Amino acid sequence: MKPSIPQGTRDLSPEVVRKRQYIFGTLRSIFELYGFQPLETPAMENLTTLTGKYGEEGDRLIFKILNNGLHEKSEADKNKLNAEWNNVLSRSYSSPVVTERALRYDLTIPFARYVVMHHHELALPFRRYQMQPVWRADRPQKGRYREFWQCDADVVGSTSLINEAELLCIYGQAFSRLAIPVAIKVNSRKLLQGLSEICGHPDKMTDITVALDKLDKIGWSGVANELQARGIDADGVARLEQVIQVFGTNSEKLQALVQIMATSEAGMQGITEITDTLSYYAQLADHNMAGDAQIVVDVSLARGLNYYTGIIVEVVCTHPDVKMGSIGGGGRYDDLTGLFGLKGLSGVGVSFGIDRIYDVLEELALFPQQLSAATKAIILNFGGENERYALDILRRCREAGIAAEIYPDAAKFDKQMKYANKRGIQYVLLPGDDERAAGRISVKNFTTGEQTLLDVADAISLLQQASATL
Amino acid sequence: MKPSIPQGTRDLSPEVVRKRQYIFGTLRSIFELYGFQPLETPAMENLTTLTGKYGEEGDRLIFKILNNGLHEKSEADKNKLNAEWNNVLSRSYSSPVVTERALRYDLTIPFARYVVMHHHELALPFRRYQMQPVWRADRPQKGRYREFWQCDADVVGSTSLINEAELLCIYGQAFSRLAIPVAIKVNSRKLLQGLSEICGHPDKMTDITVALDKLDKIGWSGVANELQARGIDADGVARLEQVIQVFGTNSEKLQALVQIMATSEAGMQGITEITDTLSYYAQLADHNMAGDAQIVVDVSLARGLNYYTGIIVEVVCTHPDVKMGSIGGGGRYDDLTGLFGLKGLSGVGVSFGIDRIYDVLEELALFPQQLSAATKAIILNFGGENERYALDILRRCREAGIAAEIYPDAAKFDKQMKYANKRGIQYVLLPGDDERAAGRISVKNFTTGEQTLLDVADAISLLQQASATL
Repeated sequence: MKPSIPQGTRDLSPEVVRKRQYIFGTLRSIFELYGFQPLETPAMENLTTLTGKYGEEGDRLIFKILNNGLHEKSEADKNKLNAEWNNVLSRSYSSPVVTERALRYDLTIPFARYVVMHHHELALPFRRYQMQPVWRADRPQKGRYREFWQCDADVVGSTSLINEAELLCIYGQAFSRLAIPVAIKVNSRKLLQGLSEICGHPDKMTDITVALDKLDKIGWSGVANELQARGIDADGVARLEQVIQVFGTNSEKLQALVQIMATSEAGMQGITEITDTLSYYAQLADHNMAGDAQIVVDVSLARGLNYYTGIIVEVVCTHPDVKMGSIGGGGRYDDLTGLFGLKGLSGVGVSFGIDRIYDVLEELALFPQQLSAATKAIILNFGGENERYALDILRRCREAGIAAEIYPDAAKFDKQMKYANKRGIQYVLLPGDDERAAGRISVKNFTTGEQTLLDVADAISLLQQASATL
Repeated sequence: MKPSIPQGTRDLSPEVVRKRQYIFGTLRSIFELYGFQPLETPAMENLTTLTGKYGEEGDRLIFKILNNGLHEKSEADKNKLNAEWNNVLSRSYSSPVVTERALRYDLTIPFARYVVMHHHELALPFRRYQMQPVWRADRPQKGRYREFWQCDADVVGSTSLINEAELLCIYGQAFSRLAIPVAIKVNSRKLLQGLSEICGHPDKMTDITVALDKLDKIGWSGVANELQARGIDADGVARLEQVIQVFGTNSEKLQALVQIMATSEAGMQGITEITDTLSYYAQLADHNMAGDAQIVVDVSLARGLNYYTGIIVEVVCTHPDVKMGSIGGGGRYDDLTGLFGLKGLSGVGVSFGIDRIYDVLEELALFPQQLSAATKAIILNFGGENERYALDILRRCREAGIAAEIYPDAAKFDKQMKYANKRGIQYVLLPGDDERAAGRISVKNFTTGEQTLLDVADAISLLQQASATL
């Protein structure tokens, strides 16, 4: 009887919603400044749109929706349904009649699906941002939910590296506005390809990528072991170590890499990509941006997803108190819409990890203070004539744009004050007999504890000023 | 291979998202002005939370989510699962292992569930607003979707009619700000109870309510027939006709009803409820509100849902060109949280029909013009040195807060102009050789067709002014 919510889901309380709106609002304003347009896709997709796009493990984590029309099927159909049901019990979801729909698993595949369905009417290049929840049947654990929000910005239909640079600008400006100190790591898949070539294993790019991806976690010696286990010979490992040990400024790194990569065409292309992207970034980055977002060329950056083909990026918080993985990432993919039969459209995009960004802002106490209570003033209710007096003041507050409320019942004073306190409302207005007789109002400031008797018009001015400083 | 989306769902294009954000933003600002707080609940609820709350038909229309862990069940469990599966095929969803979760069907039940789970920590009365999608497996048809948005504002934990009045104010102010002319119909369930008493059938309130609900559609003669079919005798029907034919201003109607209802205690209570609510409304309604929202006492207003116990309201658009059912409705319910074991909490709430409001705004061309394209300026890309010059201007635009973009490739002039046109961007900036040599920029206004050569600083001022008038 006692109600609960499904494992891995959350109710978002008013305070949490307001904090999230602050994040979403900040990102939205930057996306719009850069000419990106909002898109929203349905929570449900056809199951066939999603299966086969996220790997075998991904397929299992997709939430499938039961077809509500099953009972309408004929007897003949029912044999088929029962066969499918047995597939479901044995973990196969290949035949989608029982579950023809599923919940959105990420924002990228629905975006690709949208572009394919609408490319005739879209003005290309199409820049879109999307901020919506996704659902995954992962085992819930601290910081990992079955319903969580993604926030993506992508450009499709242009190969210009200006797009990469603009996405770096968006990252820089977003985290600067949120006051989170970050490093934005940049690499190129082509450079990773080059790595596999110069160490003599051009076919082992994936193995090398997977191993390098663990550098932060297991250090170079761990990576070296894994590389050997994956069939890279000692010479190759030594070559890779040389690359990993390139230090210095970005341009020093790039100069050193030019030497190392000289024999690899792909590697040289990767270096050019990174160089050009950084040069565009230098031209486009806001000169007035508070706190430099640090762009760091990082040859060990791999990013798991196989569909990236060019520049890849990842954002990490550099504050010493914050232990947290990446809070953003992305890259260029050359053939995303090819999954749905539309070849030759290149795309590049970045993603913001909303939940992790929330946690960082919380940990560093970076949320603006005044978000937690939108209501600026509460008017207590002393009943009868005083209630009428209170309602008149309430109306005037709202007419002046002050978010205000009245305690709706003439309850005991203590109960009303307790409510005001629990809500964290800054100003309490007390319209008692004396105040009413004098056409005035007592205003108590909960922050300072101070209480003053004011003309109603003066009280409203005061609250208006307090609202404006929000 | 050609991708599609599930029946009854929609992709929301940038233009549509912006228009919807305008509606949501307008409503949010009014909710906050009235001291309501945002709440969000998960898309998934436990199936047991939802079943039995929406009637038998409702149970069938709930989207059930397949339990992804079915394959982990033991052999013994599988017999149980197969039995449940047969239930599913025969349209019964009572046993929730196969489908232990389901998609949110409305916002009211999750709100009640939230209040019950959190009432120890909540400051009561709790005023919340919630704007989220819900899902129903209804047969899709024009204007009816399987995924659609609800927007509710409720107060729980207070019986004061000030709450009813504030919700009427919110309706009035919202539709006034959206510029939709509306009538807000008000009735009381107690008055409907009174009707059944004065016509001699105190046990037939539901029958009378159901019949009266059709007055707009089938007229009085139709309603009279249905009343007789439902067992109301000729005397009773005559009594009801007398009530329906009460015309005039709200206070004239209420005076006439006092005569008619004199013998019914419930009826008199209903009249008092309405009178007091209107009196509170008169005190609280914004004096500066553009265009009067018309409050209309309507004894034939019934509202389908059985859980209402006091004041009920419904909003209809009164513009002669708009043929549309209600675009909002709500009322008081005395025992909503009782469904989850928490007795004695009274609530009152209203709902906004977002999709219908959208359609009305579209039909009456009431959306603000400048929503359709957020990007104010596009800078064309003539490559090489001119591209560098363009990037510098682009950065300065954004630093000045102007939403701007560059065409990322040095494509043919016509292609770039076509893109700008298709996007509906108002200003096109042309940084060619001559402009660059002179440190100036040509600015083409797509609305007027005019093209002028300006100093870059002047161009930015112009665009800044154009952005400010948004």
